[in-house]
Amino acid sequence: MKNVKVHITLKSGVLDPQGKAIQESLHALGYQEIEEARVGKVIELQVQDEADIEARVTEMCEKLLANPVIEDYRFEVEGAVQS
Amino acid sequence: MKNVKVHITLKSGVLDPQGKAIQESLHALGYQEIEEARVGKVIELQVQDEADIEARVTEMCEKLLANPVIEDYRFEVEGAVQS
Repeated sequence: MKNVKVHITLKSGVLDPQGKAIQESLHALGYQEIEEARVGKVIELQVQDEADIEARVTEMCEKLLANPVIEDYRFEVEGAVQS
Repeated sequence: MKNVKVHITLKSGVLDPQGKAIQESLHALGYQEIEEARVGKVIELQVQDEADIEARVTEMCEKLLANPVIEDYRFEVEGAVQS
């Protein structure tokens, strides 16, 4: 079993309404020092050992996990997971 | 200016419907090797330099960014951001 962490972020320049809402809420709570907030996702997958795990995870990102129009993705395959 | 990355994850044992939906979708696409999927958030904050930045970010997490009942959080303050 392998643990794969997929990091998904909005492409720079893409409007981030969720980040904007967080920034405004923090300002409303008195945290004026916040200049910008941007929100991303981390999807942690537990994957049975596969020879071509990198290729398969790339496919998963392209087909489902990330929206290639507005999002960038990267992933790291971590060592064996204690099952 | 400092760049702060806040990592928010569901506490273990907490049901993750979003992760479950991803896992089922990946199975439907033919990726049977996926044993589990869990979804977390990364909030990237750009913060004006403050002496007590760590204490302030901890407050932000406790008050707004993370739900202490079902989520864990950790953060790292990165070096100066080129403004």
